[in-house]
Amino acid sequence: PPMFDKDLYENNNVAGVVTGLAWTQVGGDILFIEASLSPGKGKLSLTGNLGDVMKESATIAMAYLRAHASKFGIDHRLFDQWDVHVHVPAGATPKDGPSAGITMLTALTSAFTQRRVKSHLAMTGEITLRGKVLPVGGIKEKILAAKRANIKDIILCKSNQKDILEIKEDYIKDLNFHYVSEMKEVIEFALIKDKVKDAIDLTVKEAKETATVN
Amino acid sequence: PPMFDKDLYENNNVAGVVTGLAWTQVGGDILFIEASLSPGKGKLSLTGNLGDVMKESATIAMAYLRAHASKFGIDHRLFDQWDVHVHVPAGATPKDGPSAGITMLTALTSAFTQRRVKSHLAMTGEITLRGKVLPVGGIKEKILAAKRANIKDIILCKSNQKDILEIKEDYIKDLNFHYVSEMKEVIEFALIKDKVKDAIDLTVKEAKETATVN
Amino acid sequence: PPMFDKDLYENNNVAGVVTGLAWTQVGGDILFIEASLSPGKGKLSLTGNLGDVMKESATIAMAYLRAHASKFGIDHRLFDQWDVHVHVPAGATPKDGPSAGITMLTALTSAFTQRRVKSHLAMTGEITLRGKVLPVGGIKEKILAAKRANIKDIILCKSNQKDILEIKEDYIKDLNFHYVSEMKEVIEFALIKDKVKDAIDLTVKEAKETATVN
Amino acid sequence: PPMFDKDLYENNNVAGVVTGLAWTQVGGDILFIEASLSPGKGKLSLTGNLGDVMKESATIAMAYLRAHASKFGIDHRLFDQWDVHVHVPAGATPKDGPSAGITMLTALTSAFTQRRVKSHLAMTGEITLRGKVLPVGGIKEKILAAKRANIKDIILCKSNQKDILEIKEDYIKDLNFHYVSEMKEVIEFALIKDKVKDAIDLTVKEAKETATVN
Amino acid sequence: PPMFDKDLYENNNVAGVVTGLAWTQVGGDILFIEASLSPGKGKLSLTGNLGDVMKESATIAMAYLRAHASKFGIDHRLFDQWDVHVHVPAGATPKDGPSAGITMLTALTSAFTQRRVKSHLAMTGEITLRGKVLPVGGIKEKILAAKRANIKDIILCKSNQKDILEIKEDYIKDLNFHYVSEMKEVIEFALIKDKVKDAIDLTVKEAKETATVN
Amino acid sequence: PPMFDKDLYENNNVAGVVTGLAWTQVGGDILFIEASLSPGKGKLSLTGNLGDVMKESATIAMAYLRAHASKFGIDHRLFDQWDVHVHVPAGATPKDGPSAGITMLTALTSAFTQRRVKSHLAMTGEITLRGKVLPVGGIKEKILAAKRANIKDIILCKSNQKDILEIKEDYIKDLNFHYVSEMKEVIEFALIKDKVKDAIDLTVKEAKETATVN
Ligand SMILES: [Ca+2]
Ligand SMILES: [Ca+2]
Ligand SMILES: [Ca+2]
Ligand SMILES: [Ca+2]
Ligand SMILES: [Ca+2]
Ligand SMILES: [Ca+2]
Ligand SMILES: [Ca+2]
Ligand SMILES: [Ca+2]
Ligand SMILES: [Ca+2]
Ligand SMILES: [Ca+2]
Ligand SMILES: [Ca+2]
Ligand SMILES: [Ca+2]
Repeated sequence: PPMFDKDLYENNNVAGVVTGLAWTQVGGDILFIEASLSPGKGKLSLTGNLGDVMKESATIAMAYLRAHASKFGIDHRLFDQWDVHVHVPAGATPKDGPSAGITMLTALTSAFTQRRVKSHLAMTGEITLRGKVLPVGGIKEKILAAKRANIKDIILCKSNQKDILEIKEDYIKDLNFHYVSEMKEVIEFALIKDKVKDAIDLTVKEAKETATVN
Repeated sequence: PPMFDKDLYENNNVAGVVTGLAWTQVGGDILFIEASLSPGKGKLSLTGNLGDVMKESATIAMAYLRAHASKFGIDHRLFDQWDVHVHVPAGATPKDGPSAGITMLTALTSAFTQRRVKSHLAMTGEITLRGKVLPVGGIKEKILAAKRANIKDIILCKSNQKDILEIKEDYIKDLNFHYVSEMKEVIEFALIKDKVKDAIDLTVKEAKETATVN
Repeated sequence: PPMFDKDLYENNNVAGVVTGLAWTQVGGDILFIEASLSPGKGKLSLTGNLGDVMKESATIAMAYLRAHASKFGIDHRLFDQWDVHVHVPAGATPKDGPSAGITMLTALTSAFTQRRVKSHLAMTGEITLRGKVLPVGGIKEKILAAKRANIKDIILCKSNQKDILEIKEDYIKDLNFHYVSEMKEVIEFALIKDKVKDAIDLTVKEAKETATVN
Repeated sequence: PPMFDKDLYENNNVAGVVTGLAWTQVGGDILFIEASLSPGKGKLSLTGNLGDVMKESATIAMAYLRAHASKFGIDHRLFDQWDVHVHVPAGATPKDGPSAGITMLTALTSAFTQRRVKSHLAMTGEITLRGKVLPVGGIKEKILAAKRANIKDIILCKSNQKDILEIKEDYIKDLNFHYVSEMKEVIEFALIKDKVKDAIDLTVKEAKETATVN
Repeated sequence: PPMFDKDLYENNNVAGVVTGLAWTQVGGDILFIEASLSPGKGKLSLTGNLGDVMKESATIAMAYLRAHASKFGIDHRLFDQWDVHVHVPAGATPKDGPSAGITMLTALTSAFTQRRVKSHLAMTGEITLRGKVLPVGGIKEKILAAKRANIKDIILCKSNQKDILEIKEDYIKDLNFHYVSEMKEVIEFALIKDKVKDAIDLTVKEAKETATVN
Repeated sequence: PPMFDKDLYENNNVAGVVTGLAWTQVGGDILFIEASLSPGKGKLSLTGNLGDVMKESATIAMAYLRAHASKFGIDHRLFDQWDVHVHVPAGATPKDGPSAGITMLTALTSAFTQRRVKSHLAMTGEITLRGKVLPVGGIKEKILAAKRANIKDIILCKSNQKDILEIKEDYIKDLNFHYVSEMKEVIEFALIKDKVKDAIDLTVKEAKETATVN
C-alpha cells in the first residue's frame, strides 16, 4: 500500500547530502545521497536497498577519496577515526547502477570536509578509480525530473552532452549544464569553500602513547 | 497451529520499548520495538524475523544516533562500551519495510538515555540518515489498529496528513496526531525528560591505562 | 532409516538442561534445551538443526540475560570469560519457531548460576527482549506429550490459559499449570536455589595486569 | 570414473583416528574419523564433504570436551594452544547425519590425550551436549559392514539393543556389543590408558610475560 | 537505457592504470585496469562487476607480486602499509575470465612502484602463480578493438602467435606484437623506469616502538 | 572462444610447483599445482576455479603438514610467518575432486622447504589427514595424458596398481610407476634433498620483545 510523491530539491544545510538523478521504469526522479560521519575506526556502511553495482560505486568513491585525500584538503588519518555511513532514501525502493558514483564522491567529500554543497545542484555520472567521469543513460528522463524538482545546475559527463542536444530546448531553458570529465571538476563546482553551519569538528586526534616511561 | 491475539498498548515502564504501527495483509496492528543495552563493545544485534529493509532501518537509526549523540545528551563513548540489541516481537511473523524507522530511533535514544517514553504513544515513519521523516503507506489500517490498542497520541510524517484527512472523523476522534518532518521533533515529543525507574547506570567508563610507570 | 522413540523426562542433575515442549506434524513431543559453558571469551554457539527463528530465540535469551544479569545474581564479567553452547537434540530433526524462548533463557540462567532446575518441569513460551512471555500455539499436543513424558509442572504464558480450558479435564488432572507473563516469574519458579552437584566454579577471574613496573 | 573398495579396519597406531559405522544407500560401511592437532590458537576445521548436521556433531563434541576437559585429564588451556582438524575420508563421498557424534568425541579425546584407541573397535551413536548417547538408525547394515571390515567390538546406544536382537545370531556371533548411555562410558571403553608411540608433547605452554621488569 | 561508446586509448599519466583487451559477444573492446593505493593495512578490494574467475586473477597477481616483490624493487613491508583497490570500469557491464591477469599484475606493479606505463600499449594473457603467461581466446576480436582504440603495442602469450598469423595482414600492419612467456618479460616491456609525475611517496614507514624506556 | 592446448611437462626450477594428473570428460590431462609463499601471518589462499572438495584437499594437506612439520624438517613457527597461496591453472576451467591431494601436499612441502621436485614426475592420489594415500579413479586416461606430456615417473596409491595392470603394456612401457600407501613415501620420492636455485630464505624470525625495561 505504500504510495510515494516525486521528490523536490530541499536545501544545502547539511554536509554530506547531495542530490542525484535516477532513471526508473516510470520516469526520472531525483534522489538524495546522504553521507554521515560518526566517531569510529573507518568502517563504511551502506543502506537504502542498494544493488551490488551501486554499492561498488560507494566503495570506489571512498577508495578514490582515501587515495587523493590531500588534494581535497583532508588529513588521511581522519579515515581511521570516523565511521562513514552512506544512505539513499527511500528504503522501500530497490536501486542499482553506477550512475550515482559522482554524487557519492561529492557527498563523501562534503562529509569529510564539512563544506557546503552548492545550492539547487544535481548530478549524474559514473566514477572510475582514477577519477574519470563516465557517461550514463536515461539522461532525458533525469533532466525532466531535475527541472520538476526545482534544480538549477546539473553536472554531467562531457560524453552526455549529445543527449542534452537531443532534448527540445523549451524543456531545459532554465537549466544550466556543466560538463566534466574528471572528478576534481565535479568537486570544484559542487562544493562551496564555506563549511556548513554547525560543522562537526574534524581535527585529527593524535594517537595516545600506550605507555609513558620516565 | 500458532494463533495470535491483536496486541494492546502496555506501559512505559521500560526504557527502550516503543510502540510502532504495522500494516499487514489482514489489517493493521501495533508492534513493539525493544532496544536493550548490555555491557559490551558496540555490537548491534537485530532479531524478530526482520527483512533486509527493516534491518537497514535499525542500522540507519543507530548511525544517526551515533552522528548526533551530543544533541540528545549522549556521550559518544557509550557506543563503544555497550552492546545494543533490537528485537521486534513476535518471532514467528516475518516483518519488513522502512516504516518502523522513527520507532527504532526513538527506542534506541530511550535506551541510551534511559528516558521514559511518553505514555499511550505510537508512531510510524521512515527515517533518513540526515534526520528527515518520510511518509509511509497503510495509514488507515494502522490508525484503526492504534485506536483498538488504546493508543492516544500518534506521530506521523507531515506528508501523511492527507491520509488522515481521508479517514472518517468518527473513527479517529479520540486520537491526537502529531505531524513531524524531522527526527528531533519525534524525540522531543516522544521522550519524557525523566528517566525510567531502575534506570541502568550509563556513566562513561574511563579507559584503563595499560601500564603505569612511576 | 532412522527411527526415534518419544522422549521421557530424565532428571535435573545437570545445570543448563531444561525440558521444553514441541509441536510436530505427528503430534507433540518434549525436547531438551542443553546449555553448557566452557572457558572462553563470550562466544555463543548454536546446534541442533535449528531454523533462523529458533536461533533468534537463543540470541534474545542471551541478550536478555546479559542486560539483566544482576537481577539473577550473575556477575556480568562472566559473559566475557566463558563460551556458551546451546544444543537441542536430536540432530537429524529440523526445528524452528519461537516457542522454546523461555526454555532457552531458563537453560542459560541455570548454566550461568549452576542452579538446579526444578524436577519434572517443562515449559513453552516465546520470550521478548524486555522480559515478557508471549503465547504460543500447539498447546493441546504439547500438553499430552508432557503428560506421556512424566512431566508434573508446566509453565505457560497467561494468554495460553484459554487453550488449557479447552482440553478435557481427564487428560490433564495430574498436571499443574503455572501461568506467567514475565520472564522473572519463569526463573523464580523453574530454578531451585541450590546449585547442582559438581557445579562448575564461576568465580570471576580478575584481569591480569599486562605490565607492572616498580 | 571413481571406483572405491569397501574399507577394512586398519590399526590403532595413530592417536585421534577412530572407526565409525555408516549407513549408505548401497549398504553399510565403516568410516574413519581423523582428528589431528597442530600448534595454533584453538581453531576447529572440518573436512570430508560433510553436511551441516555432521558438522554440528563435531562442534558439539568439541564443546562437550572443552566443558568436561578435566574429567578426561585435559588441561583446558590446551584448547587455546592447538588447532584441531577433523577429517572424514573419502572426499568424493558426501556424508551427513548425527550418528558419528560419539566417534568424533572419541577421536577428539584421543587427539587431546594422545591415548591409544582400543584395537578392532567401531562405534555409532549420536552425542548430546550433556554427554548422553542417543540411538541411531541403520544398525543392521552397519553391523554387517563392521563384521566384513574385521571389527571385533562395537559400541552402541542402549536404546539400539533392540535392533541387534532382530539380527540373525549367525551374522553377529563374532562381534561383542557394548551398550552405553553416557559419553564417559564410551571414552572409558574406547581409549586405552597408554599413549600412542610417538605421542606429541601436549605440555601446556605458560603465557610469556610481555614485559620483564627488574 | 544505458548506451556506451567504444573506448579509446587515453594516456599514461596515472600510475596503476593499464589497458587490457576484452572479448564480448558484440566484438572486442579495450578495458582499463585501475589499481590504486591508499594508506592502510594491506587490504585488497575489487570492484567493476567482476566474476569469480576475474577476481581470482587479481588475487593471483597480488600473491605473485608479494612473493616476488624484491625482483621488482618493492620493499615487502609496503604491502602491509597500503590498501590496494583494483577497479575495472564500467560498472554496469559484468566481466569475467582469466585473460586480464597480466594486465592486473602490470597495474599492481605500476601502483607499487609508481612507474609509468609504456604509452599506447595494451595486453591480454592469463597469469599463473609461478609467473608464467598462458594463452587466451578471442584474439582476433581483441586485436581489431586495439587497433580501433589507437593502440600501437600489444603484449601476448607466445602460444597466441598462431592466432595472429591467421589475421589478414592489412588489419594489423600498424600494430607491434610482443610475445612473452613469463611475467617478468611483461613488466620489463610494459613499465618505463621513470615514475609518473606526482608519484605518491612509497617510503617504508618504520614501526613505532610501543614503549621507550630509559 | 577460448581454445587450449594439452599441457606438457615443464621443469623443476621453481619450488612449490608439482605436476598432477586430471581426468576430464574429454580425456586425461596434466595439471600444475602451484604453491607460493609470501611474508605474512599464516593465511592460506586458494585459486584456480576449484570446487569444494578440491579446496578441502588443500586444507587437509596444509593441516597434515602443520601437524607433521618436524618430520619434514620444517620449523612450525614458519607457518605463522608466511602466507601460502595455492593456484591451479588454468582459471577458465572448473576443477574438483580429491585426487590432487598428494600433489598439493608435495607442492606445499616443497614450498616450505624450498626443496626441488624430482624431474619429469607426476602423481595422483587422495590424501587423508593421518597421512594415508587413497586410490582415485580415471587412471587409464591420466596415464595416457602423462605419457603424452613427457612424464617419466608416476606416483600412485598401491590400490591403483590393479588399474595399471589393465592397461596394454605398449602404452606404458616408458613409464615408471611408484606405488605408495603413506604420504611420507610420496615426499621421500618426490622431493630432492637439494634446494632450488634462488631459494627464498626461510629462517625463522624471532619474535621481537615489545618492551624491555631495565
Ligand atoms: Ca522519489
Ligand atoms: Ca545520480
Ligand atoms: Ca500482533
Ligand atoms: Ca512503525
Ligand atoms: Ca523426540
Ligand atoms: Ca518449548
Ligand atoms: Ca568406503
Ligand atoms: Ca558412526
Ligand atoms: Ca567499453
Ligand atoms: Ca586483458
Ligand atoms: Ca590443459
Ligand atoms: Ca592429481
